[in-house]
Amino acid sequence: MMPNKRIANLDLALEGHRKIEWAWASMPVLRLIEERYRGSRPFAGTTIAACLHLEAKTACLLKVLRNLGATVAAAGSNPLSTQDDVCAALVEDGISVFSRHGMESSEYYENLRTVLSMRPRILIDDGADLVALAHEEMPGIAGEIIGGSEETTTGIKRLKAMEKEGVLRFPMFAVNDAYSKFLFDNRYGTGQSVIDGLLRTTNSLLAGKSFVVVGYGWCGRGVATRAAGLGARVVVVEVDPHRALEALMDGREVMSMEEAAAVGDFFVTVTGNLRVIREEHLRKMKDGAILANAGHFDVEIDLDALELLAIGKDRTRANIQTFTLLNGNRLHLLAEGRLVNLAAADGHPIEIMDLSFALQLLSSLHVLQNPSLEPGVYAVPEEIDRSVSELKLEALGIRLERLTDEQRAYMASWKE
Amino acid sequence: MMPNKRIANLDLALEGHRKIEWAWASMPVLRLIEERYRGSRPFAGTTIAACLHLEAKTACLLKVLRNLGATVAAAGSNPLSTQDDVCAALVEDGISVFSRHGMESSEYYENLRTVLSMRPRILIDDGADLVALAHEEMPGIAGEIIGGSEETTTGIKRLKAMEKEGVLRFPMFAVNDAYSKFLFDNRYGTGQSVIDGLLRTTNSLLAGKSFVVVGYGWCGRGVATRAAGLGARVVVVEVDPHRALEALMDGREVMSMEEAAAVGDFFVTVTGNLRVIREEHLRKMKDGAILANAGHFDVEIDLDALELLAIGKDRTRANIQTFTLLNGNRLHLLAEGRLVNLAAADGHPIEIMDLSFALQLLSSLHVLQNPSLEPGVYAVPEEIDRSVSELKLEALGIRLERLTDEQRAYMASWKE
Amino acid sequence: MMPNKRIANLDLALEGHRKIEWAWASMPVLRLIEERYRGSRPFAGTTIAACLHLEAKTACLLKVLRNLGATVAAAGSNPLSTQDDVCAALVEDGISVFSRHGMESSEYYENLRTVLSMRPRILIDDGADLVALAHEEMPGIAGEIIGGSEETTTGIKRLKAMEKEGVLRFPMFAVNDAYSKFLFDNRYGTGQSVIDGLLRTTNSLLAGKSFVVVGYGWCGRGVATRAAGLGARVVVVEVDPHRALEALMDGREVMSMEEAAAVGDFFVTVTGNLRVIREEHLRKMKDGAILANAGHFDVEIDLDALELLAIGKDRTRANIQTFTLLNGNRLHLLAEGRLVNLAAADGHPIEIMDLSFALQLLSSLHVLQNPSLEPGVYAVPEEIDRSVSELKLEALGIRLERLTDEQRAYMASWKE
Amino acid sequence: MMPNKRIANLDLALEGHRKIEWAWASMPVLRLIEERYRGSRPFAGTTIAACLHLEAKTACLLKVLRNLGATVAAAGSNPLSTQDDVCAALVEDGISVFSRHGMESSEYYENLRTVLSMRPRILIDDGADLVALAHEEMPGIAGEIIGGSEETTTGIKRLKAMEKEGVLRFPMFAVNDAYSKFLFDNRYGTGQSVIDGLLRTTNSLLAGKSFVVVGYGWCGRGVATRAAGLGARVVVVEVDPHRALEALMDGREVMSMEEAAAVGDFFVTVTGNLRVIREEHLRKMKDGAILANAGHFDVEIDLDALELLAIGKDRTRANIQTFTLLNGNRLHLLAEGRLVNLAAADGHPIEIMDLSFALQLLSSLHVLQNPSLEPGVYAVPEEIDRSVSELKLEALGIRLERLTDEQRAYMASWKE
Repeated sequence: MMPNKRIANLDLALEGHRKIEWAWASMPVLRLIEERYRGSRPFAGTTIAACLHLEAKTACLLKVLRNLGATVAAAGSNPLSTQDDVCAALVEDGISVFSRHGMESSEYYENLRTVLSMRPRILIDDGADLVALAHEEMPGIAGEIIGGSEETTTGIKRLKAMEKEGVLRFPMFAVNDAYSKFLFDNRYGTGQSVIDGLLRTTNSLLAGKSFVVVGYGWCGRGVATRAAGLGARVVVVEVDPHRALEALMDGREVMSMEEAAAVGDFFVTVTGNLRVIREEHLRKMKDGAILANAGHFDVEIDLDALELLAIGKDRTRANIQTFTLLNGNRLHLLAEGRLVNLAAADGHPIEIMDLSFALQLLSSLHVLQNPSLEPGVYAVPEEIDRSVSELKLEALGIRLERLTDEQRAYMASWKE
Repeated sequence: MMPNKRIANLDLALEGHRKIEWAWASMPVLRLIEERYRGSRPFAGTTIAACLHLEAKTACLLKVLRNLGATVAAAGSNPLSTQDDVCAALVEDGISVFSRHGMESSEYYENLRTVLSMRPRILIDDGADLVALAHEEMPGIAGEIIGGSEETTTGIKRLKAMEKEGVLRFPMFAVNDAYSKFLFDNRYGTGQSVIDGLLRTTNSLLAGKSFVVVGYGWCGRGVATRAAGLGARVVVVEVDPHRALEALMDGREVMSMEEAAAVGDFFVTVTGNLRVIREEHLRKMKDGAILANAGHFDVEIDLDALELLAIGKDRTRANIQTFTLLNGNRLHLLAEGRLVNLAAADGHPIEIMDLSFALQLLSSLHVLQNPSLEPGVYAVPEEIDRSVSELKLEALGIRLERLTDEQRAYMASWKE
Repeated sequence: MMPNKRIANLDLALEGHRKIEWAWASMPVLRLIEERYRGSRPFAGTTIAACLHLEAKTACLLKVLRNLGATVAAAGSNPLSTQDDVCAALVEDGISVFSRHGMESSEYYENLRTVLSMRPRILIDDGADLVALAHEEMPGIAGEIIGGSEETTTGIKRLKAMEKEGVLRFPMFAVNDAYSKFLFDNRYGTGQSVIDGLLRTTNSLLAGKSFVVVGYGWCGRGVATRAAGLGARVVVVEVDPHRALEALMDGREVMSMEEAAAVGDFFVTVTGNLRVIREEHLRKMKDGAILANAGHFDVEIDLDALELLAIGKDRTRANIQTFTLLNGNRLHLLAEGRLVNLAAADGHPIEIMDLSFALQLLSSLHVLQNPSLEPGVYAVPEEIDRSVSELKLEALGIRLERLTDEQRAYMASWKE
Repeated sequence: MMPNKRIANLDLALEGHRKIEWAWASMPVLRLIEERYRGSRPFAGTTIAACLHLEAKTACLLKVLRNLGATVAAAGSNPLSTQDDVCAALVEDGISVFSRHGMESSEYYENLRTVLSMRPRILIDDGADLVALAHEEMPGIAGEIIGGSEETTTGIKRLKAMEKEGVLRFPMFAVNDAYSKFLFDNRYGTGQSVIDGLLRTTNSLLAGKSFVVVGYGWCGRGVATRAAGLGARVVVVEVDPHRALEALMDGREVMSMEEAAAVGDFFVTVTGNLRVIREEHLRKMKDGAILANAGHFDVEIDLDALELLAIGKDRTRANIQTFTLLNGNRLHLLAEGRLVNLAAADGHPIEIMDLSFALQLLSSLHVLQNPSLEPGVYAVPEEIDRSVSELKLEALGIRLERLTDEQRAYMASWKE
């Protein structure tokens, strides 16, 4: 069957194939899983719709799904993270793709509708827009879906809100909450890739700079660790007292946003919330401050406020817009306030997405094998979660210590 | 009422008072709580039995309990961590104390029986020996207890085993599992204090050494972070694949115990399990290897195997026993395999115990105010947990960021 | 006077101006110096020839020289570091430029000859090729040069060899050996920019990887610190026992190249020497090993050996050539073995080059004001070196502590 | 010949022997040197006077000197660092010892006079008091001395002042300036041991604290690195702009002493200068601030000012004096302002002193073999310096990379 498509240019496929091949070489967990299931083709006859960042690593997941029998339809989850050459390569490989770098919002939603119209049984979502749209606009389609998975903090927050309201119609696996995901993807993945985005965009020194991380969840911790690893002095802004205290004892300074606004050279938002940097903060910032977002949606920095405050606005460098305020200060916004690691760099490191996508893949398989689960937000089963880390260790040739029988018994006893 | 006692020497009280005063100055959270409740004396008429490490910080908790009205009876939870001068000071301050530095095992259990015989309504336990003994030997006493709290990983493991077997007769609050506890006490507390124990015992350089951490739970992570912070190359031994992978990505080497045995200069066990370093490992170690335990019980290093393997055994330095093996290698055991941070140093930093003891105190209060809870292992209520971190931030003058109404609404919604 | 040029395309100037403007905003030291000397135009009537990496930061130095009165002729010091848009902008700004991205070796040398043929009085060199060529081919020109400066370890090594042979004909200031240079440029500059080059080229995770740094001089230390800061386990290869021991105590593993070859995931050479990774090492490497050079010349990895060993060679990704060996292993060479931070990223951070170029500028001024110095390699005068760091601190608003008179006297005394 | 002595108690020897034996096991470099020279007994007939911290590691040096034939007379360089049991053991081993823990200043000087009166040919000094006294009071003795060595920054500063004034009468080797010394002893040695002193004295948490390091030389860098490694936020006070900027880019905050005084929780002085913390700073400090010195002399904190400001003074804990100021604030002074690592802990780690003492030993041998050197301050010969690091690497079984002939030639050439 010929794949459907709405992409920029099929002629770009060659470069896309190269990129995918490069990624594939560093994805041993997906490879091991593919080897295990390739013979049985468990997804044969199943359509899977995915809304993901369409770049080389994602392409590897989609190709494995196809190799295991699925009909795959993919939409890009972000206009700036879509790579047109990768989309072209996917289409050549028989996957239906609907996305274009720099697409408008309307086009984005139209793409989601298109993939849903292909009547998928399983969804793989990133931010929960696909799920939300199915529920809001296409109830008939939603009724045919047996389940899916979601990989972001933001998406899971939304799914839980749906569950709480009683509107969620199928089971969704919270991949983000699996150990093999959040311990690695959120922390080491976001940490490294945000640094990558900042370095290649700005050519600015981090050593000795005041680096404000807004939000000290797993992603924020990762960003803070890497910024400190490059010599920055990290300031953390938090609403949760445990996390604030943890940041302090990790050696960070902890402040309110108002206080941090006045001292930061770099600001990275990673809260999953909206308008965490607002007009009153923008007014207090130093000349030359650099603003970036690493949360899923481009709502964390109040872009409307920034536009209103500015008396001038220029593109000063690739992926940098400079806003000149009335007080003469220039504030530099990276990647239009979208995920800086995906919009201004290549996203998470390959080895990290290998883990996260293995969870997506095995969760999809679990959905397929358990088609009658009640609607709700589910934890990824422990054995799946564990197997992903085990496969990675196996690929690395690392030996786990094994519990002795005596030790197992001891752990279950209470008498001394 | 005159306190009862079985302690080493009441004449040591002056030095004990000094130590307690020093600790008290760095315990702002306990101070704030004491101020709040001093007027109402909520524990008036209530006997509380505690089995804890009897040193200066613990003394502060016990004194606050007394100041809030309680009759307090304390036993030491470890023969090497008991400080005789602190015990003397506590007795002078009207608290019944039963412990002695270096006491035998039989004396230890006799002390537990004594405090239980004072018919406490509330228990504060560290390792769950008090709870276990009440259940095993003194069912009448156990029947009068309305609840208590437990602060160690080891103790909670035991309590959960009791709960699972259906024998636990009163509610116990798992202080260890509170954020204000494990994030700080297990990690920064154990981390720093284990380093303290190693440095003052050995005078050995950590920089450039191979430092094996057995167990990468919160305590193990803390020890690993601090060892690396002093320049050691850290090797981690783990049975859990997530933790093993996390250790790897934290920049540690990950190995089986067998492999690690051959490369380590220092070994610190912190698993909560027994015999994690066994004969086969001891045989492989390098001449001069240093062995320490930071788990609750002295069972993590197989001391019997060490004795059997040794052809000679000397006390080479305070808190160091050197075992000479048949192959000529000398293995140095610190603090007889007991908690190295408590037996060979002063235990966790004061500021850390301020948090942990605040949780113990507020949990005891919660038990008192909720005398009819079902038996079982309970999480510390979220508001208590949160309040401890908030009080600490307040004491430090640190400003948390506050959510706006718009942000609260956003976090509860799912429509974009 | 119209500038001369041999560049790729003058039409690219607009983007070049943007880049230069971005850099200029983060170069407060150069700005402060320009302000100080702009009125007196000390270089009026003087031709200065520079062989440097022709990108935006260098452009700022060249523009300041011009603004202080100099006639400036610039050649690119590396075919891959030359940015054509910056060259175009410089020509528009009245500077003679001879370079082109991707130029052949013959074109490179022709460019050097051209700038020398403009009869400069002062040279600013990077790698000492300009100085060497003047001595080897253009003795008449060399005779008119009153001096210059050199900023790399490699270049200074060559100049010292010339001085030792008695052939050096004019004074050269060893900018690399100034504190304001090597403490910052070599360490934090190389450190961050090499990481930048690796991340944007490979999208590979550093956390948990084995990262081999060959050479533990100031540059190597910087690379090692940043790699560790991103979670890698760093292995150091050194020929000097002090540095080897320092690496060990910094928490690195230290090995011979032969041993390191077998364990590395990443290799970065930064020795200033040639063929430090040779055939015998390439044969031992793991499948997927990534090879990069951060030394001045592309001689540190034996590229001929790599070509000879390979049975296949592909461009797998921008700036990556993959060599497949007979044993099936694939070795990935970044940026053709040229300086990975300049050829595959934007070079040192702007704030670092601000310091290094300030030294170049003040050294040129010193040469101009002292036209009769004997030939030889000179240290940058202490007051110049100190002033650069002082200007930077002034720009940052940081207060140095000042010695009291009593303290000065104490430091000069020996009686207690 | 029976050794002379003025020590506390010869009966303490057994514990002293144990301590020395423990240290000796971790001193492979001294062992290798002793093995090499034991047969030839090069120091036979030579009296060596040493003024050093008389604890177990130093004892190993003194015993090796004796084993190589020397007659050894030792005085303690600091009243608080002298360990009486070690002194007793040394006397039993045939070494003349003059020191006592807690001795008065007058006794200290009398001891120096006594060792000098034994007419040494070689001096081993620590702080240069022995050298200064010989010059000031005992010119006849000084005239017989053929040379010596000095290991501290402070001592070398004094010797250079003597040299500059033209009064120094014999050659002194600046052991402190050797790579094998300052790279390791000043940095990793001071770093770890200062932390040791702080931890065992205060039981305070470092994580999250503001830790002020006054002086960012090699010692200060070491202290800062280790404080950060334990989670503190480090503030640096410096008079030198290069070091200030380096501290900043190392991720520290940089301030004047006046600014730092108001924010610090811990203060460690390590400047080699006097009165770096003065009345105006003490007045600004927070309640509970902890003051320690790691410089050679107890002059860095203005103790007179502290006494004058205080309205109360108590010994609050071993090695802690608490001064209560008029404003109610309590400032805690550790170890009376003396070297906190030696007076309140066991001094540098054993493995570090192995390197430093190897330099002292080989320098003494060099003096002996070159009895006619001109007076002056000399660098330790490069081959000695190098050999110490090489012996250490040999003991560790670490392989240095070796230069090829081609590489040697390349390093000496300038033509491309």
